[in-house]
Amino acid sequence: MGSLTMAPKIRASIIGATGYTGIELLRLLLLHPNVEIAYLTSRQHPREKIGNLYPHLANYALEVTDTSPADVAKNSDVVFLALPHKTAQDIAAELHGKVKLIDLSADFRLDDAETYAAYYEEHKHPQLLKEFVYGLAEVVGRDTVAKAQSVANPGCFALVSQLLLHPFKGHIVQADIFAMTGSSGAGKTPVDGTHHPVRNHNVKSYNVNKHRHIPEIIRTGGIAASQLNFVPTSGPFSRGIFAQAFLTLDAAVAQPETVYANCPFIRIQKSVEVAGIVGSNFADLHFSVGTGGRVLAQGAIDNLVKGAGGSAIQNMNLMFNFDEGAGLAAIAPLYP
Amino acid sequence: MGSLTMAPKIRASIIGATGYTGIELLRLLLLHPNVEIAYLTSRQHPREKIGNLYPHLANYALEVTDTSPADVAKNSDVVFLALPHKTAQDIAAELHGKVKLIDLSADFRLDDAETYAAYYEEHKHPQLLKEFVYGLAEVVGRDTVAKAQSVANPGCFALVSQLLLHPFKGHIVQADIFAMTGSSGAGKTPVDGTHHPVRNHNVKSYNVNKHRHIPEIIRTGGIAASQLNFVPTSGPFSRGIFAQAFLTLDAAVAQPETVYANCPFIRIQKSVEVAGIVGSNFADLHFSVGTGGRVLAQGAIDNLVKGAGGSAIQNMNLMFNFDEGAGLAAIAPLYP
Amino acid sequence: MGSLTMAPKIRASIIGATGYTGIELLRLLLLHPNVEIAYLTSRQHPREKIGNLYPHLANYALEVTDTSPADVAKNSDVVFLALPHKTAQDIAAELHGKVKLIDLSADFRLDDAETYAAYYEEHKHPQLLKEFVYGLAEVVGRDTVAKAQSVANPGCFALVSQLLLHPFKGHIVQADIFAMTGSSGAGKTPVDGTHHPVRNHNVKSYNVNKHRHIPEIIRTGGIAASQLNFVPTSGPFSRGIFAQAFLTLDAAVAQPETVYANCPFIRIQKSVEVAGIVGSNFADLHFSVGTGGRVLAQGAIDNLVKGAGGSAIQNMNLMFNFDEGAGLAAIAPLYP
Amino acid sequence: MGSLTMAPKIRASIIGATGYTGIELLRLLLLHPNVEIAYLTSRQHPREKIGNLYPHLANYALEVTDTSPADVAKNSDVVFLALPHKTAQDIAAELHGKVKLIDLSADFRLDDAETYAAYYEEHKHPQLLKEFVYGLAEVVGRDTVAKAQSVANPGCFALVSQLLLHPFKGHIVQADIFAMTGSSGAGKTPVDGTHHPVRNHNVKSYNVNKHRHIPEIIRTGGIAASQLNFVPTSGPFSRGIFAQAFLTLDAAVAQPETVYANCPFIRIQKSVEVAGIVGSNFADLHFSVGTGGRVLAQGAIDNLVKGAGGSAIQNMNLMFNFDEGAGLAAIAPLYP
Repeated sequence: MGSLTMAPKIRASIIGATGYTGIELLRLLLLHPNVEIAYLTSRQHPREKIGNLYPHLANYALEVTDTSPADVAKNSDVVFLALPHKTAQDIAAELHGKVKLIDLSADFRLDDAETYAAYYEEHKHPQLLKEFVYGLAEVVGRDTVAKAQSVANPGCFALVSQLLLHPFKGHIVQADIFAMTGSSGAGKTPVDGTHHPVRNHNVKSYNVNKHRHIPEIIRTGGIAASQLNFVPTSGPFSRGIFAQAFLTLDAAVAQPETVYANCPFIRIQKSVEVAGIVGSNFADLHFSVGTGGRVLAQGAIDNLVKGAGGSAIQNMNLMFNFDEGAGLAAIAPLYP
Repeated sequence: MGSLTMAPKIRASIIGATGYTGIELLRLLLLHPNVEIAYLTSRQHPREKIGNLYPHLANYALEVTDTSPADVAKNSDVVFLALPHKTAQDIAAELHGKVKLIDLSADFRLDDAETYAAYYEEHKHPQLLKEFVYGLAEVVGRDTVAKAQSVANPGCFALVSQLLLHPFKGHIVQADIFAMTGSSGAGKTPVDGTHHPVRNHNVKSYNVNKHRHIPEIIRTGGIAASQLNFVPTSGPFSRGIFAQAFLTLDAAVAQPETVYANCPFIRIQKSVEVAGIVGSNFADLHFSVGTGGRVLAQGAIDNLVKGAGGSAIQNMNLMFNFDEGAGLAAIAPLYP
Repeated sequence: MGSLTMAPKIRASIIGATGYTGIELLRLLLLHPNVEIAYLTSRQHPREKIGNLYPHLANYALEVTDTSPADVAKNSDVVFLALPHKTAQDIAAELHGKVKLIDLSADFRLDDAETYAAYYEEHKHPQLLKEFVYGLAEVVGRDTVAKAQSVANPGCFALVSQLLLHPFKGHIVQADIFAMTGSSGAGKTPVDGTHHPVRNHNVKSYNVNKHRHIPEIIRTGGIAASQLNFVPTSGPFSRGIFAQAFLTLDAAVAQPETVYANCPFIRIQKSVEVAGIVGSNFADLHFSVGTGGRVLAQGAIDNLVKGAGGSAIQNMNLMFNFDEGAGLAAIAPLYP
Repeated sequence: MGSLTMAPKIRASIIGATGYTGIELLRLLLLHPNVEIAYLTSRQHPREKIGNLYPHLANYALEVTDTSPADVAKNSDVVFLALPHKTAQDIAAELHGKVKLIDLSADFRLDDAETYAAYYEEHKHPQLLKEFVYGLAEVVGRDTVAKAQSVANPGCFALVSQLLLHPFKGHIVQADIFAMTGSSGAGKTPVDGTHHPVRNHNVKSYNVNKHRHIPEIIRTGGIAASQLNFVPTSGPFSRGIFAQAFLTLDAAVAQPETVYANCPFIRIQKSVEVAGIVGSNFADLHFSVGTGGRVLAQGAIDNLVKGAGGSAIQNMNLMFNFDEGAGLAAIAPLYP
C-alpha cells in the first residue's frame, strides 16, 4: 500500500475548443493528473454543451462559455489557443505575458515577419514573433521550452519533418521529403479534399514545394528552401502522418539513437507504421542508408496528438516543471 | 469471321452532367454500343472540358455546352435529367412529350401531389406527375416502361427496398428495413455526413421513418407507411447499398426466383455483399426464412449504377427496343 | 494542493496475452491506477518482448514469460484468460477458486452444458459452468459480479444485444437484430473474411440465426431462440459494433433511461455511431418507437473494449471493490 | 445507320484463372469485342463454376476445366498464364512456340539467369529467358511486342516505375522512388500484411531496396541498382499504385509529353491520384521540376489492370494486330 502527496492541479483553458485540435487537446487534458479544466470557449458555439457538439464526450458535464480572453487568462494557469490561423494573433497579443500561453495555430511558428508574409499574409503583431518559443522540445531543447512564457506549437507536417532532419543538422545538402497525412489534419469543416467518396480510396499530392510548413521545416533544419523538396500528400485514413525523406549528406554524422536518447516520445523502430502511433504522443522514427549516399528516414506521428494537442501538453509539462511525459506517456496507441 | 449490320446509334444528352449521377451515367453511356453523346450541359460549369472537372475522363474530348434544354431536345433522341431535386421540374415540363425523357431526380417519382408536398415541397407541375412512368422495370413491368414517353428513375434506397418487397406483394403485414449506403449517394458536394475523418470508420442512422424514399417504397410495395419501418444508415464505403429486411407475411407466397426469372440484372445469391456488385448494374438478392414467421431478405446494389445511371440506361434500352441489357450486361462488378 | 492515500495496487496477469484481446486488455490495464502487471504469458511467443510483437508498445519493458498457470496464480491477485475458445477450459478448471479469475473466452459464458455442446462442442468441465458468474454488470447486477470468484466475460455481439433487450425483459415477443462488427473482432490471424482487398469496402452477413452468441443473448434476454432473428454482419471498419434491433413487445414498459440510470458506461444518446465510442468502454444506446408496435433500438460499442478488455476491467473493479469506472471512465473515445 | 465487318474473334484461355490476376483478366476479356473465352483452368478449383468461386461473376456460365496445358494451347489462339511465380516456368517451357503466350508471373521478366537467381531462385529454363519479350509497349516499343511469340507481362510496381524513368533514360544519375500499393497486389490469400484490422488505416514500407521488382525497373531504366532507392510501401486501399520519384539528371532532356505522345493509355495530368485510374488501363503521370535539380515524377495505375490484366490485353492486341486500345480504351475509371 502506498501514499503520496499529489502535485497541485493547474487550471487549463482552451480558447477555440470546438475544432478537432481543441477537442483532441481536451480529450488528453481530461486524462492528465495535474490539470483541471477552467474554461472552454468558442465563438461558433457559445454556451453549448460539449456533449451536444461531440457526442463521444456526452458523459462530461462540460460547457462552452463566452468568457472573454482576458477573463479566461485571469483565472487560468495556462491558456491554449486552438484557433484558425490569423484569428489567434490579436488574442495572443492581448494575453502574452499575462499567462502561460500555448498557441496551436500557425501564427507564431515563424520568427520572421517577412517569411510569414510570404507564406501567409501580413502579420498583425510582427514584433511578437520573436517572443514566442518554438515548441519542439526534441529539437530546440527542453530548457528552452521550460523557460518560455509563450509557445508556438509546431505544425504537424513540420514537426515530423524536423524530427527526420534534426540528427543530421549542419550536414544536409539536400532533403527530398514525401509526407502523407490523414484527413483529420484538414479540420472539421468538410471540403473537397476531405469528401469521403473520393478520399476514401485515394492518394494525391498538393501544394508541392509551396506548403506553408516549409519555412517551419527549414527554421530548425539547418537548410534553405532551395535545398528542400516537400511533397505533401493526402492519404485515405483519418489519423496520422507518414513521412519519408531521402537525405543527401556531406559527411557521416552522429547516430539518431544518440541524438534522441533522452526523448521519452521518440521511438527508433525497425520500421514505422501509422497504426503504431494512432492515439498516442509517440513519434516513431526509422533511419537506414540507401544508394547514392542517401539516408532514408521515415517517421510516423498522430497529427492530432504529437502533431497538435499532445505536443502542446508536452510543452505545458515542461513549462510547469512537471515530468515531460505526465498524463501522456501512459497513453498507448490504439492498435489495431 | 463474322459480319453484321449494326443497330443505328441514338443520340443521348445529359442535362446536369457534372454531378456524380451525371458523370456515372456518362461513364456507362460511353460503353454503350448503340449510343453517341449529343450534349452535356451544366449550369455550374458552362463550356468546361469534362476532363478538367473529372481528370479520370481526361482522355475524352467531351465538353459541357450551355445549350438550352429546348435545343438539346431538338437534337437528341433521349434526354437524361441528372439535376438536383426541384430543379428538374420546369425543364421536365418543357421537354415532356417532345423527346424521350428520363429524369434521375426525385421530382416525378411519386404520382400523387399531396404525398410529394408532404415529403418534399409543393410541386410546380402536379398535373405531370401521372405522366411519368415509374422506371423500375422488374416491378412495374418491362412493357410499361417500353411504352413510356417520360420516365422517373427510382431512388437508390427505394429501388433496392422495392426489390426486397416485390415478391411478397399483397401479403406483407409489416416490413422492417435497415439499409446502409455508401457516401457517394450524398452527391459531390462535401457535407458533414461525408466528411472523411469521421465517415471513414463510422456507422450512423439518420431520418429514421422520415426518409423521402418512404413514399416511393410503398408506392409499389403494396403496404402503407404505417406498416414500414425504414432505417437509412450511412456506411464507411464509397459505393453501394446493403439492405436488410425482416418481413412479416400473412401467407406463404411465390418464390422470388420465379418472380425474377426473366430479369437479367437480378441475381438471387446464396448471400449478398456490396463488393459483389460495385461498378455493375446487378441487384444481388437473398431470401431466407427466420423465426417468428419473418422472411429475411437482403439486397445489394451499386447506388450510382443500378441505383441511378445503370437503371436509367436499362430504361432507355426498353424505351428504344434495344436488348434490356445492351451496353450494361457485360460490365462485370469490380472485384476486389 | 491536495494529498491522498492511494489504494493498494493489485497484481494482474494475463494468460494468452498476445492476441488482440490480450493486448487491448494490457493497453487498458497500463492506464489503471490500481493495477500493476505481474505476468504476461503466451504459448505462441514464449520469452518474447511485447515490443517486438507489437511495436506500438515498444516503449514498455514488458516480456512474455513461460510461467505455469499455477505459478501465475500464486503471485497474482487477478488472472485474466485471453485464450482461444476451448483452450481456456483446463486452465480455468485448474485455477478456479485459487485466484480471482476473469475468462475472456467463450468457455464459461453458458451455464448449461447441453447448450454449450450444441453451439460449441462437448465441454471438458461441465460441472464448472454454473460456478462462473456471467460478467455483464448492467444486466446481472453489480453485486452479483462483486461477489464472484470467477467471471465469464461476455461476447461482444452478445453484450450489445443484451443491452438492447434488457430494458424490455419479460415483455419481448420477438426480437429481430441486425449487428455489424469491425474486423478486429476476428482476432489477429488473417482469414478470408478479414482479407483487406475485399473487407475494405464490403458488407456481408454470415452465420445468420446460427451464431454462437445466440444462446448467450437469450440467457439474459428472457426470450427463446425461437423468438430471435440474429443477423451477424461484417463491416468495413477495424473497431466497433453497430447493432440495430426491431423489438415486438407485449406491453409498454419502463424507460431505458431509468433502467440504466446508475450505469457509468451506458450513455443513452439521441443517435448512436461507431465513431462515438471507439477506444472507450462506453456503450451508446438509442431507443425509439416505430410502426407496427416495434421498438427500434440501436447500440454501439468498441468490440475490443466494452466488448472484451474494458468489460473485463469493469468486472475486476467490482470484484476488488474499486470504483466501477476506475481506470476506464476517463478514457474518452478517439474522435475523429 | 452504320454497318461493318467484324474482326474475327480469337480464342483466349487463362491457365491459373482463379487468382485475383486471372479473374481481373477475365473481367476485361469479357468486354473485349474480338475475344471469346476458350478455357479457364485452375489446379486449386478443378471443374468449379466461376460464379461459385466469385459471386460477382455469378451471371456468367463459365466453368473451370482441368484441361492440360497442351490441350489448352491446341485450341486457343492466345494463352495467358496467371500462375504464381515459379509455377509458370514448366508450362511456359512446354507451350512456348506452340501458341501466343502471355505470362503474367515474374518468371520471364528478367533476361538474365544470374539476376533471376539472385532475386528469386535458380531458374528451371534459363535458356528461355531471352525468348520472352518484355511486354511494356510504351518503353520497349509497340513493334517489339507485336512481333513477340511469348511475352513476359511486367510487374505492377516495376511498370509504373519504368514509366516515370523512361523519358529521362540515359540521363539519370540517381532515382529515389517511393511507391505505395493497394492490398489487392498481394493476391487473394490472406496474409499478415493484408489483415484488415491493421491494413485498414496503416502505411508501412517493406523490402526497402530489396524488392524483386528492382532488377525489372533497372532492366529498361538505364540505371544500375546502385543508382536506385526503391521504397515499396503498403497503403490502406484495395486497388491502385501511387509512385513518387525524385530523379537527379545529368542534363535537361526531352519532354515526357513528347515521349508518350502516341501512347493511348498514358495520360500526362496536372496531378495524379489513385481514384483517377481505378478499374481502367490508364497510367496517369505528372512531372515537374523541384529544387536541387530534381525532377519530381508521379504516377498512378490500377495494379490489377495496367499493372496486370489490362497490360496483358494491350500486349495481346499488339500481337494480333488489333487496335492497341481494343476492348480497353472505352473502360473509364470508376470514380468516385
